[in-house]
Amino acid sequence: MAIDKVLIDQHNEKQLSLHKKKFQTLFDILEDEGHSVDDLINKIKAFQIAIPSWALGTGGTRFGRFSGGGEPGSLEEKIQDIGILHALNKSSGAISLHIPWDIPKDINIIKELAADNEIVFDAVNSNTFQDQKDQEVSYKFGSLSHTNKAVRSLAISHNIEVIKHGIELGSKALTVWLSDGSDFPGQQNFRKTFHRTLDSFHHIYDALPEDWKIYIEYKPYEPHFYSTVVSDWGSSLLFCQKLGDKALGLVDLGHHLPNTNIEQIVSRFFMEGKLGGFHFNDSKYGDDDLTVGSIRPYQLFLIFNELVEGMSSPEVKNPKLSWMIDASHNVKDPMEDLLQSVEAIKIAYTQALLVDQNALEKAQEENDVTTAQEILQNAFRTDVRPLLAEARLRAKAALHPISAYRDLKIRENLVKKRGTKSMATGL
Amino acid sequence: MAIDKVLIDQHNEKQLSLHKKKFQTLFDILEDEGHSVDDLINKIKAFQIAIPSWALGTGGTRFGRFSGGGEPGSLEEKIQDIGILHALNKSSGAISLHIPWDIPKDINIIKELAADNEIVFDAVNSNTFQDQKDQEVSYKFGSLSHTNKAVRSLAISHNIEVIKHGIELGSKALTVWLSDGSDFPGQQNFRKTFHRTLDSFHHIYDALPEDWKIYIEYKPYEPHFYSTVVSDWGSSLLFCQKLGDKALGLVDLGHHLPNTNIEQIVSRFFMEGKLGGFHFNDSKYGDDDLTVGSIRPYQLFLIFNELVEGMSSPEVKNPKLSWMIDASHNVKDPMEDLLQSVEAIKIAYTQALLVDQNALEKAQEENDVTTAQEILQNAFRTDVRPLLAEARLRAKAALHPISAYRDLKIRENLVKKRGTKSMATGL
Amino acid sequence: MAIDKVLIDQHNEKQLSLHKKKFQTLFDILEDEGHSVDDLINKIKAFQIAIPSWALGTGGTRFGRFSGGGEPGSLEEKIQDIGILHALNKSSGAISLHIPWDIPKDINIIKELAADNEIVFDAVNSNTFQDQKDQEVSYKFGSLSHTNKAVRSLAISHNIEVIKHGIELGSKALTVWLSDGSDFPGQQNFRKTFHRTLDSFHHIYDALPEDWKIYIEYKPYEPHFYSTVVSDWGSSLLFCQKLGDKALGLVDLGHHLPNTNIEQIVSRFFMEGKLGGFHFNDSKYGDDDLTVGSIRPYQLFLIFNELVEGMSSPEVKNPKLSWMIDASHNVKDPMEDLLQSVEAIKIAYTQALLVDQNALEKAQEENDVTTAQEILQNAFRTDVRPLLAEARLRAKAALHPISAYRDLKIRENLVKKRGTKSMATGL
Amino acid sequence: MAIDKVLIDQHNEKQLSLHKKKFQTLFDILEDEGHSVDDLINKIKAFQIAIPSWALGTGGTRFGRFSGGGEPGSLEEKIQDIGILHALNKSSGAISLHIPWDIPKDINIIKELAADNEIVFDAVNSNTFQDQKDQEVSYKFGSLSHTNKAVRSLAISHNIEVIKHGIELGSKALTVWLSDGSDFPGQQNFRKTFHRTLDSFHHIYDALPEDWKIYIEYKPYEPHFYSTVVSDWGSSLLFCQKLGDKALGLVDLGHHLPNTNIEQIVSRFFMEGKLGGFHFNDSKYGDDDLTVGSIRPYQLFLIFNELVEGMSSPEVKNPKLSWMIDASHNVKDPMEDLLQSVEAIKIAYTQALLVDQNALEKAQEENDVTTAQEILQNAFRTDVRPLLAEARLRAKAALHPISAYRDLKIRENLVKKRGTKSMATGL
Repeated sequence: MAIDKVLIDQHNEKQLSLHKKKFQTLFDILEDEGHSVDDLINKIKAFQIAIPSWALGTGGTRFGRFSGGGEPGSLEEKIQDIGILHALNKSSGAISLHIPWDIPKDINIIKELAADNEIVFDAVNSNTFQDQKDQEVSYKFGSLSHTNKAVRSLAISHNIEVIKHGIELGSKALTVWLSDGSDFPGQQNFRKTFHRTLDSFHHIYDALPEDWKIYIEYKPYEPHFYSTVVSDWGSSLLFCQKLGDKALGLVDLGHHLPNTNIEQIVSRFFMEGKLGGFHFNDSKYGDDDLTVGSIRPYQLFLIFNELVEGMSSPEVKNPKLSWMIDASHNVKDPMEDLLQSVEAIKIAYTQALLVDQNALEKAQEENDVTTAQEILQNAFRTDVRPLLAEARLRAKAALHPISAYRDLKIRENLVKKRGTKSMATGL
Repeated sequence: MAIDKVLIDQHNEKQLSLHKKKFQTLFDILEDEGHSVDDLINKIKAFQIAIPSWALGTGGTRFGRFSGGGEPGSLEEKIQDIGILHALNKSSGAISLHIPWDIPKDINIIKELAADNEIVFDAVNSNTFQDQKDQEVSYKFGSLSHTNKAVRSLAISHNIEVIKHGIELGSKALTVWLSDGSDFPGQQNFRKTFHRTLDSFHHIYDALPEDWKIYIEYKPYEPHFYSTVVSDWGSSLLFCQKLGDKALGLVDLGHHLPNTNIEQIVSRFFMEGKLGGFHFNDSKYGDDDLTVGSIRPYQLFLIFNELVEGMSSPEVKNPKLSWMIDASHNVKDPMEDLLQSVEAIKIAYTQALLVDQNALEKAQEENDVTTAQEILQNAFRTDVRPLLAEARLRAKAALHPISAYRDLKIRENLVKKRGTKSMATGL
Repeated sequence: MAIDKVLIDQHNEKQLSLHKKKFQTLFDILEDEGHSVDDLINKIKAFQIAIPSWALGTGGTRFGRFSGGGEPGSLEEKIQDIGILHALNKSSGAISLHIPWDIPKDINIIKELAADNEIVFDAVNSNTFQDQKDQEVSYKFGSLSHTNKAVRSLAISHNIEVIKHGIELGSKALTVWLSDGSDFPGQQNFRKTFHRTLDSFHHIYDALPEDWKIYIEYKPYEPHFYSTVVSDWGSSLLFCQKLGDKALGLVDLGHHLPNTNIEQIVSRFFMEGKLGGFHFNDSKYGDDDLTVGSIRPYQLFLIFNELVEGMSSPEVKNPKLSWMIDASHNVKDPMEDLLQSVEAIKIAYTQALLVDQNALEKAQEENDVTTAQEILQNAFRTDVRPLLAEARLRAKAALHPISAYRDLKIRENLVKKRGTKSMATGL
Repeated sequence: MAIDKVLIDQHNEKQLSLHKKKFQTLFDILEDEGHSVDDLINKIKAFQIAIPSWALGTGGTRFGRFSGGGEPGSLEEKIQDIGILHALNKSSGAISLHIPWDIPKDINIIKELAADNEIVFDAVNSNTFQDQKDQEVSYKFGSLSHTNKAVRSLAISHNIEVIKHGIELGSKALTVWLSDGSDFPGQQNFRKTFHRTLDSFHHIYDALPEDWKIYIEYKPYEPHFYSTVVSDWGSSLLFCQKLGDKALGLVDLGHHLPNTNIEQIVSRFFMEGKLGGFHFNDSKYGDDDLTVGSIRPYQLFLIFNELVEGMSSPEVKNPKLSWMIDASHNVKDPMEDLLQSVEAIKIAYTQALLVDQNALEKAQEENDVTTAQEILQNAFRTDVRPLLAEARLRAKAALHPISAYRDLKIRENLVKKRGTKSMATGL
């Protein structure tokens, strides 16, 4: 189901005059302050966020899942859904595949479909946190870290297979979220577990093509509740250091202990040239996988402030970053949730672009704390939505993606087509 | 599958002389200190902890479940499993049923089977956090708190039905863990949600028999990740105050924010005569549902210290407490886990019985903080396991339940009987 | 040192045309959306936040304090400082006094000085967390909760004396932050400590004039690190319920365990008619006492959303609220910090005023979670600073208080007058 | 004031027969299990824990300090106090000096006094978190990380001076707890701050003698409440890696975010050969600096389990560790608190020595989680106090140090000698 571009134009038409007014005022103010608004808009337009293939269906918890209707039942339908999102916001032009949930049956059809929807293939994700049907050995007690070599070999092979799928699709990176860990003191020897994992990582690393990266995600707990092998940024960095240049850390915003200063971790990875990318989401308690920006929008802005500053600094030598969403939409229409998430990410990015980095540096040098805060908050408090809307308008996307999504009755049409009982693979 | 008592005797025989030696030394020391060891042992013997019907199978997380073998496939088999536990430790003589997972088909058969295993029926649990097959309206957005009256009515009816099942079985209390809550700011009006819930509770309360209680469990998050309706002890107490004498708070050890002083909450409920009982487990991060005492055994002891002190104080007027386990056994044999949990609870209880309450009161009055700590730690550091073993010996249970469980190859026999693919209902 | 109003006018003159442009655009948009901008501005103008007398000096930690210059050395100078703040923002027209740090020597002089600066006296604060010179008995092990009656009596007398000072000044409330608690398990009997405290509170309560309130603040830890007597909102509410109508809870934003949903606590107090007021600040880890809105501005907005909704609801019967700042300015000029804090509070309040409550209620009733979030975020993302500036302009305050403060070289003048070594009483 | 050894003998005499009985039973059981009790006791005897020079006085919080009596007013008196502790427990034969609070006036007198008390000099501690009187530039905005080179130079010089004092005394390590950090987003550029700090560390590192170490302590917050430069173990490790072999991480148990798995961090440092030592204490909320083992004794045991396993593993190449206490005794007699802390540390160490490492390894290899837990808990639940008492008896220390301390009226004598108003330097 593709969106007729005429419908988007009609949607925009109705809101155009109000948009123009808001945009013009903001344009004037920003230009007066020395910004090039066209530059800003070009940066906003260029910024693309990958949608994970498992995020198009309704998520659940260990207590159950309440599915919505019209969920995509195949990889093809997932790509179509992302195509719709991308048509609406022109900012979701990438998909991050999860294997084995989304192994392409016919690679050419999938690639064509993606190309038709202007979607590229971002990092591919492996899964060794679940046993697949008829799997010979089990991941119950770990995969890459398992005490049993047979299990480790299976997990290594799976990762290598995921790389192969990725190569065929044009991906350039493998994301490993390793759920391995323990639930009770004494269950594992931390040191031996680390070394077994490192050894497994080496095998996977060796299978990476020259121009590929491996992203090593960290997480302090869940699905294991005492320890995890890649528990924090320090552990992730240690693995990356021991593996080599292609190994980089991946930051999932929800994967931190309470009160963690995430933006400083981002800076640390970046400083070391070891930042691979992000899994964006938001949370109040743990890995809640809520809509990006729904709980702590200022923290999101502070993270982007680190990135914008770092990306423009000659001191930082870091490969290009991957931007991905990783959320679980338990009580919202997943596509609406994704539109909100993309919007929140781009708002934070745009606000960070507005920070006067020279003035900030001066305030920092002088320990003028009040002014440093004023500079950041001035950017954060600016209503940048007209810039995002203008960027979408120029890209022929919808001025207000969620309104357009509802006006065009997209979910209703999907339900009509796919039924109320279709259910996406995923968590 | 019942355990032949002769096998337990044989198991005990082998360990008897070592036990006698350990016990005799401890006996002498405690008697010298003024304790009546026989009194202690009688209290230990009398202390029974209910096993929840959902804890006999392997638990899982939102990322998957790795089942073990020989899991009970019916309520009958669950009662048999608890019968085995009780035969081994004579401390698990109660079951806490979960409806609708474990609705008895033939009430008399179930009651007979329970009686044969010396098991009584503790509080019954309702479930409005999952939709049942062909349910007319959904609990996706709440149950007792739902904005739609039809959903609230369904949830009320279900709770009343659970009470009816409980009456038939001889239970005396309904436990309501209400998962209702919200995932995003703005999703619910906190005040109206509270009032709708209170109204629903009133309907359930009115259906309680004269000699019944309703236990209102609180939990700060999960499965919802922004707010919950009964989020903390204060909210639970508020509902209980508004409902009446039959409404009491229930403390699940894992349902607290980081660093909460749980023992003080226990004291607050007790002081108000509003403590219903416990769901025991342990945790490091959130509601991890780990084996009781596996992470923070000292905290468990401190909770029991509050209970032992309160139960003996004329200032505390509180109904009899319910003791239940609520854990999720993801990587252990559930029956082994339950044996470990019961042992940990009884160790903490016994240690608390050893606290010299008069000396502690004196130290508190004098603000002699060092001595107060010495008194508590003296009790906690005492190895009370010989007392527990002796109590089991006198009750004709196993000196070492877990060793006996393994020696008697109970799991192997269950797997033989039930197969490797049987799977218990539950989470 | 009073500010010459002409200087403020000159400051405003320079920024007027830019302000007018921003304001006009926002005016048009908001009026189009159905808001009465004049009503909004009147509400903003009327909103006054009390400055605590201990916040005019540089704060410290247990590791030391780094004082700034020109700090007020007397109550008179503190009132002058607040007068300056109020002249700049016309939103700080109240002072919250701390006794015994700021006992007025000549009550009439103080009252006149306050009146000259258009400052009224908000809640008075007692202090039983420090021993005063030559105090006969010590608060080392508690005050209102102490095991020794003599200590409790002293603490009660002190609170009654604070009320008397308040009556003379025109205050209408006593704020009690009771630091009493324990550092080690076993140090205190929780129940007896509660009852002793309750008894002490009764004595203080009985000394309250008819039209007074007592605000009972809660805090989970610090300066004691195992338990506190008024540890959480539930404990605060329990005291208030047992005391009577004049007793209300006070919410200090920094006094919560990690991840607490503070806005729901605010709603609970409000629902029960038991909300007294706020100590505003912000924090990342504990009671960090940072500038309001500097870490979690969205949470601040959500709290105000509860208040705005509740204040307009006929279901809520709650006395008028007290708004106070309680922050510790360790690395900023305290007056600049206070200007930033007041601004942040008023921004959050204004954003909350913009929430379309009817649309929100509709979305909540329909469980339209996406729309509920859109409504809140639409308000939060709006740049309301032109409304605040306009309200100040109409009140003859500064368009940009911090810029004015710097342009007018206020701190430099204070240093000249008071020296670099003057040091305010406080923490 | 030295303790007459005859008095200790008299104290022991009274408790000897009960001790002998307890010890003999434990001896028999442990020997039966294959332990050499004499080996255990020799290890216990050899284990010495350094007392920090700032821990002999009553500590405080930012809200005040309630001093006790008889506090040591000079370095000489502090050494005497540690001498008393060491006479009582023969486990505190080291002091960790804090400069500039405890600069020796006459180095030879101090060294002789220490030798007389059988006390050696452990790591020396620098202090750049407070300004000293008449300091030319201020540490208000940092020291080794400061934007101003003059401040960095001062802080570097101070550290080099501390090394010089340490050399004279016979210390072999410098502990740097760097309080540098920021209180507000934007205040510092994380990357530049890191690099300035690294540069300063290099200067200090270069001044270390060949056989010295530098311990780099990490802490997430306090006295700064947004970020710290050495915020976590990952940052500490990064500095150590960049500096060289002499740089090692130091773990203060209280310096972690909520729910951190500290034992895994210990293992990570150890695995990398980068563990310098410990600052022992306990906490419930933050850096509460409570008596060791007073809140989470099982965690302490788990840490020692890592150390005991690692120290015996050929895979671990790590320098000898430093064991230090770092607590703040706000409501206890500091010397009693230190006796309790030392006891708790040695109990945990002894329990860890009892862990059957071979059986544990086997259970880990087989993923027998139940057994792994049984092994650890079996050790933890063993009452090892008779072993500690026997070790003290053989070392001619007191069977029960705290009882002896009280029986001998040590505090009363110190008060008589030093008065009730003496006050130790420190926090």
